[in-house]
Amino acid sequence: MKPTIRDVANRAGVSVATVSRYLNNSSLIAPVSRDKVRTAIDALNYRPNMMARGLVKQNTETIALVVDYSHEEIYGNEFFLKIQVGLEREFSRHGYYLMLVNIASAGEAPGLIKKIILEGRVDGIVLLNEMAEPSVIHLLNEMEVPFVIAGRGEYKNAAWVDIDNVLGGYVAANKLIGCGLEKIGFITNSFQKRFVKERFEGFQKAMMEAGLEYAETWVAAGLNTYQDQIKFLKECEKPVCDAYVVSDSYIAYHFIKALKNSGYSVPKDVQIVAFDNQLLSEVSEPGITVVDIDVTMLGVHAARFLLDNLYRLDKNYEPQARHELLGVRLIERGSTL
Amino acid sequence: MKPTIRDVANRAGVSVATVSRYLNNSSLIAPVSRDKVRTAIDALNYRPNMMARGLVKQNTETIALVVDYSHEEIYGNEFFLKIQVGLEREFSRHGYYLMLVNIASAGEAPGLIKKIILEGRVDGIVLLNEMAEPSVIHLLNEMEVPFVIAGRGEYKNAAWVDIDNVLGGYVAANKLIGCGLEKIGFITNSFQKRFVKERFEGFQKAMMEAGLEYAETWVAAGLNTYQDQIKFLKECEKPVCDAYVVSDSYIAYHFIKALKNSGYSVPKDVQIVAFDNQLLSEVSEPGITVVDIDVTMLGVHAARFLLDNLYRLDKNYEPQARHELLGVRLIERGSTL
Repeated sequence: MKPTIRDVANRAGVSVATVSRYLNNSSLIAPVSRDKVRTAIDALNYRPNMMARGLVKQNTETIALVVDYSHEEIYGNEFFLKIQVGLEREFSRHGYYLMLVNIASAGEAPGLIKKIILEGRVDGIVLLNEMAEPSVIHLLNEMEVPFVIAGRGEYKNAAWVDIDNVLGGYVAANKLIGCGLEKIGFITNSFQKRFVKERFEGFQKAMMEAGLEYAETWVAAGLNTYQDQIKFLKECEKPVCDAYVVSDSYIAYHFIKALKNSGYSVPKDVQIVAFDNQLLSEVSEPGITVVDIDVTMLGVHAARFLLDNLYRLDKNYEPQARHELLGVRLIERGSTL
Repeated sequence: MKPTIRDVANRAGVSVATVSRYLNNSSLIAPVSRDKVRTAIDALNYRPNMMARGLVKQNTETIALVVDYSHEEIYGNEFFLKIQVGLEREFSRHGYYLMLVNIASAGEAPGLIKKIILEGRVDGIVLLNEMAEPSVIHLLNEMEVPFVIAGRGEYKNAAWVDIDNVLGGYVAANKLIGCGLEKIGFITNSFQKRFVKERFEGFQKAMMEAGLEYAETWVAAGLNTYQDQIKFLKECEKPVCDAYVVSDSYIAYHFIKALKNSGYSVPKDVQIVAFDNQLLSEVSEPGITVVDIDVTMLGVHAARFLLDNLYRLDKNYEPQARHELLGVRLIERGSTL
């Protein structure tokens, strides 16, 4: 493996900052340290590059947010825009600029990220979790570039910030349990998405804690459209549940219509709690009670993690593998009593 | 006024590119030109800075998109995100990165823009028209930094791209006129916004061309909420119009509810055409016929204008003051027959 600036520092018995001063021809380095560093560099055949210099000096004051606009469901929505706004707000408060780096195709990520690092364009990288693949994480660790994952990271030594979706599902179910309801279902379009799995996990936890059991038939996936939902209500075991936790507002908006058009009153017959405070949860009749997540804060906190690691670089490259799960809040509207 | 690289070129009787080569110590400059440039620089007391060098070399490959997240109604919505996606897509195709530069307060724009230019961070600037104020335009012209306005610009020598909202209003009204309707109204929340004025202008044009007159009472502003609209329908001259052009989808969504709850059938009694293809136009019952604008293309075309001017810089700083109005398309749904 290619030697890093840390290997040089370790071998020379000096700090990374000292190696950095050597690389940058700083006068603030003792002649004896200079000799040690030079000897270590020779022994390891270390080749300092623009990147190592730029990083330690932190002189680009620019952070890259890696995006892939071909994944419109991830990068083309309000959720992403809020993360970006949160990131930019926090970075600009600390004198950093946010640069967008668009991956034209999936396999291109490591190459393009390496390019912007080698060109000395950035001090750090923000990835959404979809972009945090092994090849990318490996590259960033090897190049010693601080990064943070907005969303759940799955790597040791990676800093990430995510929404606590398990808590979200727990809060949603507990709202209904608190109303004295016992027959509570959970519907979604798909359990494939991690946030849906996590919300369902929280739902299960709340039901278990309350000593409530739920039948498998109360849980349904594939209910994306109004037609799916009308069919579900027609074919499902009667009576329908007293309440449903619905995995997102879009599905809940149509499900409330399907319930009304199937002869049920919301919230009198059936209560609904969904997730994410969006325009549809407001314009729905009745309005939809939602567990809301502050996505802008996800960006703000991710930026803070990265900034903390950037500041630490002055002393040594030891990025902290911090993780944080952000809380949720319940916004009550007419779909619950 | 501080002399510019063009002043030097003019006085020396050489091209800007030649002055640039001199500043960058290029070997591709004849000794006689070198002398002329040096003499002109001395005479004008021209002080080449990082910026002038960076610009002519175009070596940052970075474009700044100036934003102001405190104006959430402009920078915090899907419309803005689409412009950004279009810009980034086109810039990255040409090897440029898009950097976000957030203005923390209104008066800060010229200072911050000057800072990023002096620091040699960018080759060009994209402004939304709200940001294109005299102080900013003056600065960019003086510093000879290519820029483009996404939205309608009001300055000579500025390149801008906008949506043809007059055409939009014209297409909307003509859809209804083509259905044989004559009593057509226009409602909005406010005529203060330029795009509303322009859409209304197009409406007027279509009515005039069709030889139709409209009563002032058929045109109403201030109809933002469902309650406003219920009141309007209660108090307005009966019968209500056969059709309305509505200035945006949000208002149209609620207006259709207000019409239905006031006893009118849409589209049988009243037809509706609105603008902007959004989630609300789809989920409305009936769905809303809209004049759609391709906002992503606004970003793509704005990027192209700027790229064209960047490439021209190699020869001379003569940015083209090009303007373009992008077309619209009609998406027909259940709110019209």
